[in-house]
Amino acid sequence: MTTNDSHDSIRAVQWQGDRLRLLDQRRLPAEEIWFDCVNSNDVTRAIRDLAVRGAPAIGIAAAWGVVLAAQKGEDLVTAMATLRAARPTAVNLMWALDRMNRGVVAGADAAALETEAQAIQDEDLAANRHMGELGASLIEAGSHVLTHCNTGSLATAGYGTALGVIRAGVAMGNIEQVYAGETRPWQQGARLTMWELVRDGIPAKLIADSAASHLMKDGKVKWVIVGADRIAANGDTANKIGTYQLAIAARHHGVKFMVVAPSTTVDMATATGADIEIELRDATELLSIGGTRTVIEGADAWNPVFDVTPADLIDAIVTERGVILKPDEDQMRILFP
Amino acid sequence: MTTNDSHDSIRAVQWQGDRLRLLDQRRLPAEEIWFDCVNSNDVTRAIRDLAVRGAPAIGIAAAWGVVLAAQKGEDLVTAMATLRAARPTAVNLMWALDRMNRGVVAGADAAALETEAQAIQDEDLAANRHMGELGASLIEAGSHVLTHCNTGSLATAGYGTALGVIRAGVAMGNIEQVYAGETRPWQQGARLTMWELVRDGIPAKLIADSAASHLMKDGKVKWVIVGADRIAANGDTANKIGTYQLAIAARHHGVKFMVVAPSTTVDMATATGADIEIELRDATELLSIGGTRTVIEGADAWNPVFDVTPADLIDAIVTERGVILKPDEDQMRILFP
Repeated sequence: MTTNDSHDSIRAVQWQGDRLRLLDQRRLPAEEIWFDCVNSNDVTRAIRDLAVRGAPAIGIAAAWGVVLAAQKGEDLVTAMATLRAARPTAVNLMWALDRMNRGVVAGADAAALETEAQAIQDEDLAANRHMGELGASLIEAGSHVLTHCNTGSLATAGYGTALGVIRAGVAMGNIEQVYAGETRPWQQGARLTMWELVRDGIPAKLIADSAASHLMKDGKVKWVIVGADRIAANGDTANKIGTYQLAIAARHHGVKFMVVAPSTTVDMATATGADIEIELRDATELLSIGGTRTVIEGADAWNPVFDVTPADLIDAIVTERGVILKPDEDQMRILFP
Repeated sequence: MTTNDSHDSIRAVQWQGDRLRLLDQRRLPAEEIWFDCVNSNDVTRAIRDLAVRGAPAIGIAAAWGVVLAAQKGEDLVTAMATLRAARPTAVNLMWALDRMNRGVVAGADAAALETEAQAIQDEDLAANRHMGELGASLIEAGSHVLTHCNTGSLATAGYGTALGVIRAGVAMGNIEQVYAGETRPWQQGARLTMWELVRDGIPAKLIADSAASHLMKDGKVKWVIVGADRIAANGDTANKIGTYQLAIAARHHGVKFMVVAPSTTVDMATATGADIEIELRDATELLSIGGTRTVIEGADAWNPVFDVTPADLIDAIVTERGVILKPDEDQMRILFP
């Protein structure tokens, strides 16, 4: 599971038996720096400080954090509570910790918890491969598509969610050209998605997030394809800031809008998007670039890092259980009873 | 005209009798560097390389470039052609050169051309003050507003177009809170608009361009207020990339959309937005930040720096001649026969 022998199999979250090796996503693409987490606090910090990011990858890393806590004899209740509080929006984090907690409550030892974490990781990769096929088959041959943020191997156990669909769509000949929004302020599209696309040899162009509507105007872009951090019971979808704006622009231009996420991202206990907590991060992320202040001293900024796209702007939600077209609560309940 | 005694009177384009002094807008807000243009080529370079930017300021600088050419005995036809080719989208550049050319053709000497350039600059400032009052009176008391790019003193002879309306609206109590989109890739909103707003003590927050729709969702933002680089005969408006996307988002949320520009930005010889040349700039502007490559080598980018907002997404065009509500060709012809 830890080989990098083909491009789409970059594994940014690698279990080493007694430590969790992470590719520091803050340093890409300039440097490929790996570092080891040896206890659960190391994992919490890596999640909170964005060294590991992407809803599925966060959940997987947290599961390994519980294994480390068990191996090192940490208090597991405290460790899981601390991991859970690392970031608020992606439900995969809570889902993975709930699953690990069931093992803890049942008295599982470190070895059994390790087996459970490995299963979470393996299932995510398998889900991505399956979603890739399902999503790509919705796309007409020769399409241009637009994606946002990073949803690839770096954000998951491997292959990717939205980027998995793009990989499959390119392989099937359905996707001819990919555009990636740079995804301010953290530049996940510019730094990470372009890194994956170029390494895979997929025809791709970076755009400013604000150029998406101008791009859609010429009619070549057929689908916007994005991931998710949480999908509510009615299909409302929390994802990286800017997703909602892309959905509005897509509807305005008759471009279709696809959300790709494993079932671990679906939270049927959250009724609608209004119930999803949106993480506000520090203003500094907008006021500085690369540690250098770029805005006048005394300036303030508003920095929500997620938004909610209402279900009625979404044409398809692709999960490994199947595709939900024109999602609403009834359609969601068919696959998530 | 060159004093900086009050905040809204920062003058980024200053005529010194035998040289044109420019505030280098590429260096703000980190440094306030002034430099002198002593011939028309210096002015062409300053326009092309974005040391001076903003449609009205570009036109004014070009007019002074013609004066320098006359003073230094340059070939005026060549000088004007070179200035005209510096940037393609903003029509104020062509307008100012046409007006100066009428003097040249009529045999005006350098002193007469100097008088003409000063008139262009003075008229722009007066237009801004008048537009400020006209636009601000459209805004209900206590509104939040969103602006894009920089349309302030730095982009004009002084006071500003959209930012002039914001200044007047704050003074009248109609505007309570301003949000500024950072305006990738050149960060005019982050670097320049926030610089002007903080210096003026106007309550302002910076946002990522892609956060605009999430911001509009809560209903507090009542107007999006932007400038223009060219307004076609039917009201279609070319402006900084991202403007079109904001107009779509505004319409989706019932937020009103105002374009503020002097009559020099109106080009009745251009029938519709489809006839406006959109400047594509180098991909490097997206692939690097502050001279440091931030995207994997081998990556490509698409970097249009303007887009066109169709008239039917615009609620009001404010010029110094008056306000055009629900612009179309008939409405435009009333003020621009």
